[in-house]
Amino acid sequence: MNKRMIAYILGLLLLCEAGLLLLPVAVALICSESVLTSFLITIGILCVAGLILIHLKPKDKTIFAKDGLAIVALGWIFLSLFGALPFYLSREIPSYLNALFETVSGFTTTGASILSDVEALSKSMLFWRSFTHWIGGMGVLVFVLAVLPLSGGGGDLHLMRAESPGPSVGKLVPRSNKTARILYGIYLAMTVIEIVLLLIGGMPVFDSITISFGTAGTGGFGVLNTSIASYNTFCQAVITVFMALFGINFNIYFLILCKNFKGAFKSEELWAYIGIMSAAIIAITVNIRGHFDTLLEAFHHAAFQVSSVMTTTGYSTTDFDKWPDFCKTILIMVMCIGACAGSTGGGFKVSRLLLLLKYAKKTIHSYTHPRSVKVITFDGQRVPNETFQGTVAFFIIYVLIFAVSLLIVSADKNDLVTDFTSVVATFNNIGPGLGKVGPTGNFNCYNALSKIVFILDMLLGRLEIFPLICIFTPSIHKKHFRKKL
Amino acid sequence: MNKRMIAYILGLLLLCEAGLLLLPVAVALICSESVLTSFLITIGILCVAGLILIHLKPKDKTIFAKDGLAIVALGWIFLSLFGALPFYLSREIPSYLNALFETVSGFTTTGASILSDVEALSKSMLFWRSFTHWIGGMGVLVFVLAVLPLSGGGGDLHLMRAESPGPSVGKLVPRSNKTARILYGIYLAMTVIEIVLLLIGGMPVFDSITISFGTAGTGGFGVLNTSIASYNTFCQAVITVFMALFGINFNIYFLILCKNFKGAFKSEELWAYIGIMSAAIIAITVNIRGHFDTLLEAFHHAAFQVSSVMTTTGYSTTDFDKWPDFCKTILIMVMCIGACAGSTGGGFKVSRLLLLLKYAKKTIHSYTHPRSVKVITFDGQRVPNETFQGTVAFFIIYVLIFAVSLLIVSADKNDLVTDFTSVVATFNNIGPGLGKVGPTGNFNCYNALSKIVFILDMLLGRLEIFPLICIFTPSIHKKHFRKKL
Repeated sequence: MNKRMIAYILGLLLLCEAGLLLLPVAVALICSESVLTSFLITIGILCVAGLILIHLKPKDKTIFAKDGLAIVALGWIFLSLFGALPFYLSREIPSYLNALFETVSGFTTTGASILSDVEALSKSMLFWRSFTHWIGGMGVLVFVLAVLPLSGGGGDLHLMRAESPGPSVGKLVPRSNKTARILYGIYLAMTVIEIVLLLIGGMPVFDSITISFGTAGTGGFGVLNTSIASYNTFCQAVITVFMALFGINFNIYFLILCKNFKGAFKSEELWAYIGIMSAAIIAITVNIRGHFDTLLEAFHHAAFQVSSVMTTTGYSTTDFDKWPDFCKTILIMVMCIGACAGSTGGGFKVSRLLLLLKYAKKTIHSYTHPRSVKVITFDGQRVPNETFQGTVAFFIIYVLIFAVSLLIVSADKNDLVTDFTSVVATFNNIGPGLGKVGPTGNFNCYNALSKIVFILDMLLGRLEIFPLICIFTPSIHKKHFRKKL
Repeated sequence: MNKRMIAYILGLLLLCEAGLLLLPVAVALICSESVLTSFLITIGILCVAGLILIHLKPKDKTIFAKDGLAIVALGWIFLSLFGALPFYLSREIPSYLNALFETVSGFTTTGASILSDVEALSKSMLFWRSFTHWIGGMGVLVFVLAVLPLSGGGGDLHLMRAESPGPSVGKLVPRSNKTARILYGIYLAMTVIEIVLLLIGGMPVFDSITISFGTAGTGGFGVLNTSIASYNTFCQAVITVFMALFGINFNIYFLILCKNFKGAFKSEELWAYIGIMSAAIIAITVNIRGHFDTLLEAFHHAAFQVSSVMTTTGYSTTDFDKWPDFCKTILIMVMCIGACAGSTGGGFKVSRLLLLLKYAKKTIHSYTHPRSVKVITFDGQRVPNETFQGTVAFFIIYVLIFAVSLLIVSADKNDLVTDFTSVVATFNNIGPGLGKVGPTGNFNCYNALSKIVFILDMLLGRLEIFPLICIFTPSIHKKHFRKKL
């Protein structure tokens, strides 16, 4: 392990966080709020810690795959630990564990909350809370890469690979910091378009910005206790569309920007994503028709909720915990499937589902035709064996972590549906579940141990398990295994 | 496909079923019950159908792997369709769908029931109901193989492989009909020992026999409305031990019979099975301590329920639906894991879990050590790639069928916990679930469509998915794919 390089990049990351905290500082100044000091203290702490880490400037700048995983895992943990300080120092969230829960939920774009009264927070704190979604959505290290050229030798690609969601990541352009800039450019542009549309729809400026942050990161923190229910239908429709858009692989937008429409629309994942989403919306619309006055209204709410849950955003316009069980089952399923790889959304990812289905199909085929050899392709390209192995292992570990989490959480005194959907909602970075953690509830019904489990699940879900597991794998530290990739 | 040979074996199977029905006929004669005629009519129908099918005696006796799958799938469907006739003809279960549900539940050793009052059935009908467990437990085709030498050329091995549970099946001795006889011998001997012990414990003769059938097949049909709760503690303890014993791979008993103790006790699956079971029992004992007077009593009930649920038997001594959520979560998890491969129990199987865990561990290892090559071994032997591929595909399809079943069933008007555990309980061949289908409930709360889904799930669970899927795969019928294995 290149420990000095890891420390160096972590230092840069903390300085970046200090820089990003200047935005809520500005909000606090504009609204002349007293919580300003807690932001300033946090910035001070971050600068000191960051400068100390940077001071250990490494001679060797190479990053190995393992280093990339360690940086990403430690980076996200550090960001969250420091990012929780404003909430805690200002006493707006008096328990540090709760503040950490809220911050991890923010950065991991989960949107699960321990607050029963969101509106009690000050504006600048609400801004920071929503801003963590925006930062976490595209990835913090991708941001660092976009801003600073880090190292040569492909080391930066390891970082991006470790942080980006989905089975495999390619570079859009040869240099990865340029790739990072393009991705952030598209991300920023789409966020701005949403803000403008919401403003046109008559939403207040503060709400437009924070809600757009939550949509862009597919996070789900709102600024009102009613989530999105209080806004008008036009604004809800805009959010529906943008949630769905942010759940699409950003490579597709890049291809569209390059006018490579053929490449963009041959994506199997895109069509599967659209197909699953449409099927879920239609099924739910039919099922909840009786709950609403018009078919259009039922469709509106079905589309909003499916878009929100499948992209793992977690906004709500209505209490879907009161919907029929059939709807809830569909919602839990699209929750688990999640969005596209390479999007800001969480979950298992549509492309992984497709890969597994192709694998299963191939195996059934080989049972009935033992001597035929079938090659699995994805988007017209042959899928390498390692991709399969990774996807399958991911699936196994995913189910395993899920089971262990559920076991620990069920020792708490809540009901089975609440326990089950709490784990689904945090592990897939969705936000609300059903029962006590439904759209009208919050996660404060759990004890400290369960909250720690949820915090770990949110991080494991966002970083797609492997980086975090790898820092706990002892053999990673053994020097003789160190090989340059 | 060798259609004539398939028809011939199916004919033999129906004649066997007619022969097995002579036992409940004897019971009806002893108790002089009027339902005798419905058994005789069924036997008549079976003989006619069986003789017609046998009449098409095939010239070519070779069975291919695909033929084996088709025979097993069709065989189980035929057995169930005809086996339901006595219940229906006697009007003791007036709806044919319900009678079929009960019969499939019997043969697949599920033990889920649509009856609210079991004691209303006549003795001979209760006997047939429990006897289906015993027949289904070791496998019907294994029985046919044990009785009749079918064909040469290893074709009979395809049959056994398709019917036996678990990732892979070997022959104990070179000839598979001898293997089948050894397995049935062990099975019969253990059943007789249990009957004797229950008689010593003071259980009535009829109950001893039927309850032993249910234990041996890990089925779970009782003859009293209170399941096992009315029997004394000694009998309950005997059943606890025998349920656990019938959940162990029968190859291990064979090795013990051959005095190969070293071979028997080096089985990784055996130790994992004992480990998981013990851990679950201890955790539940601690958790339900307060519900009972003494620690021993809590242990007794915890051990009974874990043994019952993990081996997918489904007997109960107490209403575990009233236990804390932590216990219920553990029970659902051991339900899903299931018993050992090569036992009469259902579920995912402990060996499959071990294989998947080893696979995941290897993948994590390869992430941190990209150039090292690690070989996966099981019981000291290298695991072939096809076993992995099969296990992984099984896992994927398992989750997929689960999701589709849950979706259809949730359209019915029950709650989420009932829906979820109903699918778990039928697909894993357990029997009772939680909520409305808990130990004191039954499956009659579902509509016809859901019952059909459950019937298919029970068959899919017992036959481990592939045989049934293969008869629905169109390309199996294409002649040019026909290759001898």
